[in-house]
Amino acid sequence: MPTRLKIRFKCNEGKSYSYSMASLAHGYIMEIIEPQYASLLHNLRLNPYSQYIARDKDDIVWVINTLDTRAKKEIIDKLIYNINNEAQKSVFLKKRNETLYIKEFSIIESDYKELNKILYENKSKKILKLKFITPTSFRQDNRYCIFPSVRLIFQSLMHKYDAVSVQSRVYDAQVLKSYEEQAYIEEYKLRSTLFSLEGILIPAFIGEISIKINAPTQLVNLAYMLAEFGCYAGVGIKTAVGMGAIAVIK
Amino acid sequence: MPTRLKIRFKCNEGKSYSYSMASLAHGYIMEIIEPQYASLLHNLRLNPYSQYIARDKDDIVWVINTLDTRAKKEIIDKLIYNINNEAQKSVFLKKRNETLYIKEFSIIESDYKELNKILYENKSKKILKLKFITPTSFRQDNRYCIFPSVRLIFQSLMHKYDAVSVQSRVYDAQVLKSYEEQAYIEEYKLRSTLFSLEGILIPAFIGEISIKINAPTQLVNLAYMLAEFGCYAGVGIKTAVGMGAIAVIK
Repeated sequence: MPTRLKIRFKCNEGKSYSYSMASLAHGYIMEIIEPQYASLLHNLRLNPYSQYIARDKDDIVWVINTLDTRAKKEIIDKLIYNINNEAQKSVFLKKRNETLYIKEFSIIESDYKELNKILYENKSKKILKLKFITPTSFRQDNRYCIFPSVRLIFQSLMHKYDAVSVQSRVYDAQVLKSYEEQAYIEEYKLRSTLFSLEGILIPAFIGEISIKINAPTQLVNLAYMLAEFGCYAGVGIKTAVGMGAIAVIK
Repeated sequence: MPTRLKIRFKCNEGKSYSYSMASLAHGYIMEIIEPQYASLLHNLRLNPYSQYIARDKDDIVWVINTLDTRAKKEIIDKLIYNINNEAQKSVFLKKRNETLYIKEFSIIESDYKELNKILYENKSKKILKLKFITPTSFRQDNRYCIFPSVRLIFQSLMHKYDAVSVQSRVYDAQVLKSYEEQAYIEEYKLRSTLFSLEGILIPAFIGEISIKINAPTQLVNLAYMLAEFGCYAGVGIKTAVGMGAIAVIK
């Protein structure tokens, strides 16, 4: 049950906002959730949530995605409870000593059954367009990869899917190899950037790509399903602190 | 003796100009040079010249680089002779049925000795910034590569250098491997694009990159020398018809 909480804040005058601010927003989440759940999260290899902060015209938008029922209950429900209990609806970021005032917020609840329906669609569109909304990066051989590749993207999405999926598993080395051989980045507009995390600058990229998938319908559908899942899970590293937020461009 | 002829044209009103126009300019060169030299060029694996057309503010600029003495004599000298013998200094592009009027032109003559001096400089700057001025592409395993890589760039430049160099050879598999292991693209701003060539659209990219070279001074210097050479030779495929023009950003 992927769920999305989207909070729109007014910008405070004279303040500058970057994607990196999401790491402070993450700190806020860690403060308000139950310590028991926080320590459970701490021991997981892959997080059942992702979150990021991005500019949207004159506002900033904070998006928190949870990927299973428990994360929804422990994180999103708690956030909404907190917001509704503040006299003036707001979020206080301790490390910035700044209060962000909420203009509005919305929740979208999705369903893995809906997501999995994509697998049985009769799609013929072999172009998958992705937007990397916040700085995205991959780790491979102890290096940061600041160029996307078909392999890095689908490998990451498959692992993230399997980490939260209860019934089905999608990771398969052969399928990944098929993507590598039969799909390629056909168009792109990308630039490198840095994501600041606790004083460390993480090399990353941002922008848009089109992936052409010259593969059987099954694999095209799986790619679309993984991409739609990726809109909740994010892709690549540090998706819990604001990196790797993606959108499927329709 | 790398030589550069730079011709600045007025744009004709109501006409649009793209990088792909350089393939027509190439046709013009082939018409005016001696048939004997044209057929000699035809049989070479790598051309001793490169040329491209790019917009520069309100004008278009045509740059023709020759890489050896003969190409300079047969191409650049012939072009200048032709231009000076036209009543009104111009170039007629048959396939577009368009006359381009020349505002000004200039020649820069370089020297391989000067270029090779870079090899013995005491440089410590380990960042090499390159601009891909016109659509650039590489071929590998029968595929177009529309992302640059350290390997693809230096491999191409080494082969081009060796094709025109009389005394020294620079291609070395071990050196190329060192670049691959010790240098990486640290920053970039790139987008894919298409280069139209005789009705075929060639996938390519355009933009800027910074290469960080964590290698001994010798290899840093060689990289700089190859990049400066690349400003004349171009990089990647189809540099004779307008692709792969580069500049070193100082």
